[in-house]
Amino acid sequence: MKIQPKDKRQLLAAAMGKINCDLAVKNVKYVNLFTGEVYPATVFVHQGFVVHVEDQDLSAGLDKADKVVDGEGRYIVPGLIDSHVHIESSMLTPRQFARAVVPHGVLAVVTDPHEIGNVFGEDAVRYMHDAGCDLPMRQFIDIPSCVPAVPGLEQAGASFEAAVVDRLAKLPNVIGLAEVMDYLGVVNGSDRMMEFLEAADRNGLYIQGHIHVPENNRRLLSAYLVGGPHSCHETTQAFEAKAKLRGGMYVDARDSSISKNVADIWQGIKDLPWRDRLCLCTDDREVDDILETGQLDDVLRHAIALGMNPIEALKACTLNPAQEAHLENLGMVAPGFTADFLLVDDLEGFTIDSVWFGGKQVASRGKLTCEIAEKHFELEGRNSMQVPELSPEDFKLKAPAGCTDRVRVNVQHYTSLKSSLTRLSCEELPVKDGCVDLSQDEDLFYAMIINRYGAGTRSFGVVRGFGAKRGADASTVSHDCHNLCIVFKDAESGYAAYRELVKCGGGICCAVDGQVKCTLPLPCGGLMSNEPCEVAARQSLAMKKALKEELGMPQENPLLRIVTLALPVAPAVKFSDLGLVDVMEQKFLPIFPDFAD
Amino acid sequence: MKIQPKDKRQLLAAAMGKINCDLAVKNVKYVNLFTGEVYPATVFVHQGFVVHVEDQDLSAGLDKADKVVDGEGRYIVPGLIDSHVHIESSMLTPRQFARAVVPHGVLAVVTDPHEIGNVFGEDAVRYMHDAGCDLPMRQFIDIPSCVPAVPGLEQAGASFEAAVVDRLAKLPNVIGLAEVMDYLGVVNGSDRMMEFLEAADRNGLYIQGHIHVPENNRRLLSAYLVGGPHSCHETTQAFEAKAKLRGGMYVDARDSSISKNVADIWQGIKDLPWRDRLCLCTDDREVDDILETGQLDDVLRHAIALGMNPIEALKACTLNPAQEAHLENLGMVAPGFTADFLLVDDLEGFTIDSVWFGGKQVASRGKLTCEIAEKHFELEGRNSMQVPELSPEDFKLKAPAGCTDRVRVNVQHYTSLKSSLTRLSCEELPVKDGCVDLSQDEDLFYAMIINRYGAGTRSFGVVRGFGAKRGADASTVSHDCHNLCIVFKDAESGYAAYRELVKCGGGICCAVDGQVKCTLPLPCGGLMSNEPCEVAARQSLAMKKALKEELGMPQENPLLRIVTLALPVAPAVKFSDLGLVDVMEQKFLPIFPDFAD
Repeated sequence: MKIQPKDKRQLLAAAMGKINCDLAVKNVKYVNLFTGEVYPATVFVHQGFVVHVEDQDLSAGLDKADKVVDGEGRYIVPGLIDSHVHIESSMLTPRQFARAVVPHGVLAVVTDPHEIGNVFGEDAVRYMHDAGCDLPMRQFIDIPSCVPAVPGLEQAGASFEAAVVDRLAKLPNVIGLAEVMDYLGVVNGSDRMMEFLEAADRNGLYIQGHIHVPENNRRLLSAYLVGGPHSCHETTQAFEAKAKLRGGMYVDARDSSISKNVADIWQGIKDLPWRDRLCLCTDDREVDDILETGQLDDVLRHAIALGMNPIEALKACTLNPAQEAHLENLGMVAPGFTADFLLVDDLEGFTIDSVWFGGKQVASRGKLTCEIAEKHFELEGRNSMQVPELSPEDFKLKAPAGCTDRVRVNVQHYTSLKSSLTRLSCEELPVKDGCVDLSQDEDLFYAMIINRYGAGTRSFGVVRGFGAKRGADASTVSHDCHNLCIVFKDAESGYAAYRELVKCGGGICCAVDGQVKCTLPLPCGGLMSNEPCEVAARQSLAMKKALKEELGMPQENPLLRIVTLALPVAPAVKFSDLGLVDVMEQKFLPIFPDFAD
Repeated sequence: MKIQPKDKRQLLAAAMGKINCDLAVKNVKYVNLFTGEVYPATVFVHQGFVVHVEDQDLSAGLDKADKVVDGEGRYIVPGLIDSHVHIESSMLTPRQFARAVVPHGVLAVVTDPHEIGNVFGEDAVRYMHDAGCDLPMRQFIDIPSCVPAVPGLEQAGASFEAAVVDRLAKLPNVIGLAEVMDYLGVVNGSDRMMEFLEAADRNGLYIQGHIHVPENNRRLLSAYLVGGPHSCHETTQAFEAKAKLRGGMYVDARDSSISKNVADIWQGIKDLPWRDRLCLCTDDREVDDILETGQLDDVLRHAIALGMNPIEALKACTLNPAQEAHLENLGMVAPGFTADFLLVDDLEGFTIDSVWFGGKQVASRGKLTCEIAEKHFELEGRNSMQVPELSPEDFKLKAPAGCTDRVRVNVQHYTSLKSSLTRLSCEELPVKDGCVDLSQDEDLFYAMIINRYGAGTRSFGVVRGFGAKRGADASTVSHDCHNLCIVFKDAESGYAAYRELVKCGGGICCAVDGQVKCTLPLPCGGLMSNEPCEVAARQSLAMKKALKEELGMPQENPLLRIVTLALPVAPAVKFSDLGLVDVMEQKFLPIFPDFAD
């Protein structure tokens, strides 16, 4: 994709010096990512594009610009490009997301609206596309490839087929097919994945990947590359990073709010002579993390701190991601490229002085300096809580008929407080008043997943190692289907959290002793706040505090525990709205194994 | 463009090791152009594609391949990709061109069928496309942007408009818009060029450039880049190469048969930290040069001899040109890429042992080892000599009425035997029997350009410094319109050469004392031989010898003198079929300035 000017002839005339250009930036150190050089330059901008770069700091000839900005010796670098991000994970709408990230120098993102896509289907992708226009940044869309991720084992609000790709590819800012996470489907040539990949090729979309490669099965990576995906942000180990770069895959090295992979990746590739297909990305960062720590700028600083050459690190979040996503005139400050650039004090610390989008200053010293027009969309107010009417009694886990004392239960068992990986443990649990009783074991909680798209389905079981000590944690953010997920110790708290989220249209809630303690309302699809980013950040922090203090959760970020409880692509045992899933075998497990049909 | 397999599922199964693959290449040193490493590997190929690369030399597991080839410790590297070539300049048809270049390891070319396009228009592009299919190499087509190059100042056999681009872009192997040589049209925003560039964008074609950048006018380069072209093979000077790479332009460094630019280009860029947009190309090489010296393999060896790192030089004629031309799965030996590769004895000398196309051996130790099916096309026999019937008398240059003694003549004056650049010299010449008499000055020749597309136009004037001593040199190869061009000392020889080329359907001919001495028949559009490459090479060598010995031309390659005589894009004064052109002013000059209308 090439960003086209409104009137190319005006740009040509300005480039030739026949007419004045809008802006000249003088007295800057120009970082050339094509050649790896840094030298003094003067940059001329007209109607949103760079039209000329003089390889010297000009004192004469500046009258050819209507406005001259003195860079005061700072570095001029391209705006940052996040190669893979889910805006929904910030809990912000696309417009509030822009308010949050633009001051951090992030001027383009390749987004996968996979989360909201699972809620509202095609409408959601169109909403994310439209809400992402007319902003002081560029939000590109990759079409979600896995809605739902695991058909047959879970039910989302929509189901995408290849025909959806054909339709959505017509939207102007759609550029790719998003993270093809059904990698087994790809390497095994499943009909569904083959049709998606063909649709991507047919529509000229690049194909973003998602694969974990075990050290003893490189053929899996080869087959996946043969299948078509050419990038991956799921690299966690050093050997994997090296294998992927060697295979020509773009490695989108991720530091999300929860998964910090850049350090391990760097260990695997730091000795390679060339790393042109290394990109940096955030994947998922929450609003408070963005406002406090940063977004892609923070990943960049981390990469430099790890020992990466600052110019190469900068290329990994500008020119390389542009190349990965086939964005032809983004990622550099050069003639014909968009005038999206930053002035930074130093390359090592990457302290951003000012942010310029389309040749206009949009942020300065961490503060937005432009207006972002308010726009409202029907979808932001659409109710996504199509759940059954439940009573407190429904939150009691009935033992099978005839069990009066004890019953064996298949439990989803978290093996660590940090990882979302689980295993199956079959435990004999006490029965009291006809219900499974968890009161004797502090580490056991009930888990209920309620379909919120009108299917009427719901699963109910037991989880160990969740991390809470009491009360209930409920969330409509629940990857990837985002059904309503409630983890609770007592029925009253579970019911209270359920009621609260139905009332506020989705979000995250915690309750203790039947009383709601804190709510983070996310009424936009049950995933995003309709509040300004500053408000959402405060609410997010309050929620984290409540989960720690009220529920006793020990995790550094307790918000993220519940969101992968019902993710049946993560090994080994996960709940969905349809039941307990054996992820490796792709089949259901009975809650009560001795009473299976 | 992504080359698609016939059955992706078969490739996936072979990649996973579920079925046997066609071929395994063991015991090779693998040159990884993504990472810059060289290491032992085993390469697995199925149905024309690389399906897996094991990062070690396997001894076990080779039973997973139907055939195992022992690389005997050689390097395995991708087939070479020529980023810019005119097949017509080889004087071979596409199929004979393949016979000539495949043994040199050239397995993909980006061709601009500009020459034959000027002769037969759209039909010619379709011919070059179709004749370039089903070969042991890939011939991609860029649509000629300048047919004719200078509308209004010359007349070719066709005139391309943007609608032609829309039609030709539908051909499967069309990938770009070819060298946009009307760079003034681009930077000045001419309607014609703007329409061509828009058509390229509309059809998803990349845009190949052609621009000379003066040292004191970098804005010209900036404006051209703003216009859209992103590559250039016309770089001749060191400063220009550096400026282009700095601007993000792909520099296709050329060593043609006549223009050797790689050495100067290397001087300008050898100190840059990165050179990812450097490519190598041949542009124009004649058949005998290809068979004797080589094609892109020769340019590669030259670049290495100049001091370029061999792995980087290899990347400049594989992965970089693939990237320039948006060829997604060409230019590397990696999973999902085409199995077009070479086994070479050494990287420095680049001695090619064997050539493999789509996983099949097609050449060994410089000899083709596969059959190329003969195919014949109507266009190869089509007569392109639509010229007026002339008599010997027509070859006398009549002086204006009333001139009996002397007359002032505007002469096209070559300033060097090596360069095609000319200047205007206005000379007072003797008149004898009513005609301009050149017998007194050995360095002066008559020049006649006869439209050969039925327009009936013809120009007649005088040239100085051509290089011949006697006789006539005639050619239908005459850039860019390829009208019939005859340079002669005496009318009889001029007429004899004219008659000969009309008879044989075009080509190159020399005559002395009214007798044809040698003919190189090029009946395919007056540009290409219908003979096998070995025969054409012998004829070409004979022609060069005749021009030297019979006409006394001192140039190392006298074949190439006449071909730019009527090229009104090269400064400063050139003939066309319409008259003598002031190239800088884009207007006609009278032959007899004192008798101008």
